[in-house]
Amino acid sequence: MTTGFTEETSAEVVAASFDGTPDPRLKAIMTSLVTHLHAFVKDVEPTEAEWERAIAFLTETGQRCDATRQEFVLLSDVLGVSMLVDAINHRTPAGATDTTVLGPFHMVESPPRELGANISLDHNGEPCVFAGRVTAPDGTPLPGARVDVWQANGAGFYDVQQPDVQPERNLRGLFTTDGDGRFWLRTVVPRYYPIPDDGPVGRLLAATGRHPNRPAHIHVIAEADGHVPVTTHVFVEGSPYLDSDTVFGVKESLVRPVTEVDDPARAERFGVANPFRLLEFDVVLDKVRA
Amino acid sequence: MTTGFTEETSAEVVAASFDGTPDPRLKAIMTSLVTHLHAFVKDVEPTEAEWERAIAFLTETGQRCDATRQEFVLLSDVLGVSMLVDAINHRTPAGATDTTVLGPFHMVESPPRELGANISLDHNGEPCVFAGRVTAPDGTPLPGARVDVWQANGAGFYDVQQPDVQPERNLRGLFTTDGDGRFWLRTVVPRYYPIPDDGPVGRLLAATGRHPNRPAHIHVIAEADGHVPVTTHVFVEGSPYLDSDTVFGVKESLVRPVTEVDDPARAERFGVANPFRLLEFDVVLDKVRA
Repeated sequence: MTTGFTEETSAEVVAASFDGTPDPRLKAIMTSLVTHLHAFVKDVEPTEAEWERAIAFLTETGQRCDATRQEFVLLSDVLGVSMLVDAINHRTPAGATDTTVLGPFHMVESPPRELGANISLDHNGEPCVFAGRVTAPDGTPLPGARVDVWQANGAGFYDVQQPDVQPERNLRGLFTTDGDGRFWLRTVVPRYYPIPDDGPVGRLLAATGRHPNRPAHIHVIAEADGHVPVTTHVFVEGSPYLDSDTVFGVKESLVRPVTEVDDPARAERFGVANPFRLLEFDVVLDKVRA
Repeated sequence: MTTGFTEETSAEVVAASFDGTPDPRLKAIMTSLVTHLHAFVKDVEPTEAEWERAIAFLTETGQRCDATRQEFVLLSDVLGVSMLVDAINHRTPAGATDTTVLGPFHMVESPPRELGANISLDHNGEPCVFAGRVTAPDGTPLPGARVDVWQANGAGFYDVQQPDVQPERNLRGLFTTDGDGRFWLRTVVPRYYPIPDDGPVGRLLAATGRHPNRPAHIHVIAEADGHVPVTTHVFVEGSPYLDSDTVFGVKESLVRPVTEVDDPARAERFGVANPFRLLEFDVVLDKVRA
């Protein structure tokens, strides 16, 4: 007559309520969700007041979202779920460049720019050349590869966060590699920055003694015909928070130094005064498999 | 240099980020949450598109909440979590009346009413006497116990859902038991009803082949000095959906028949014409333990 729901049977009874789900994938997801969710609740045995606080937290997280703010993505980020989903979906073969999270700031298209262009339109930060080469795993250069770059300025802000301060499309550019698979551009060294922390996720970090910062990085999406695109960052060696990125995005394979280069010939090729600062990042794209 | 986050280590790495949480209870909750959440994600291996849909679903669930609608409570309800939290927090000793969920409709205070009062102000539904006795586990009657009653009408709606149709405080009353621990009142037989299903939770139910209905019930909160209060329902025997309450609230111990009574003396005591319909529900409250 009843469903037989008890503290002991709850997960099985609720999972069974999804038995009639027409889509087998949705059925599998709901069954797994119920199993793990009930295991969590049984593990922590929340008081009714604690459960009400959890409901209020989730509600506020949803209500903090708008056209330029996605608080549930931030929550997923600081709980390491975004990076876990990234890892599951990009089991990169050895040799290919590792992936990391896309992040929330790729909300506008990067404007196509010529190799060597300066993407720092506000000149806020220490000038720096960003250069690299896109190749296949066997080292074959990939001419005509698209390299999409975006980053924060020397104060730790993206253009979309400061529409009244930074020029539109500041520190964004879509480049195409030359006949040797190379790309190069002028920019500034990015600064570490906090994720938006004036909402419920920021309060969670504060309550748990965690800082909200990400170490300095430049975002890169690289793609070439016949190859698997990669969404990644290059992290600046020596940046604060490399060992405690609040979204768990750092991989050791993605950390590179900004070096001081004294080489008049290279400076001339990059169109900068000698000496200059250089951040180099080569990208290896796996071949698409049949 | 990095956190060592990988698909294999993710739960441990993220749990460790909460090691500095000052409040030990919050630390335990976050550690358990991360462990179970990562186990769920590893189990279902969501695509990036699926994860985005999950984020969008949670966001919409938060944004559907307002002063009179709590969509995250509905989500907790249909996933059986509200009933599980209820079960964990009310491990009722044998003999005491079982608990079930409070539900979202106790949002206004029930007006104190005299024993025998008619709480059906709109006369929508089949007239019925609701009566019972509040006792301790050893059968001792509890005079002066408070019995708070609220219910949907014969069309399946609570007053707060139809402020323009139903009189204020329709089908709500706070009663005090007489010297023999008894309460009685006039009302109507409630109808089964759907939980609000025009939001994301309703769409989830539809997509999974589940109906949104709760079987007919009257809500009761009973309390008496020196005893443990109980929040529960009495369910109407024979109601549709008793075996598939969408919030898993039904317990067999809480189901009672509406009987047809032909007894002029009782009819007179209850102040109704003979014969009459009667729903009886006795409540047993556990003693507060030191």
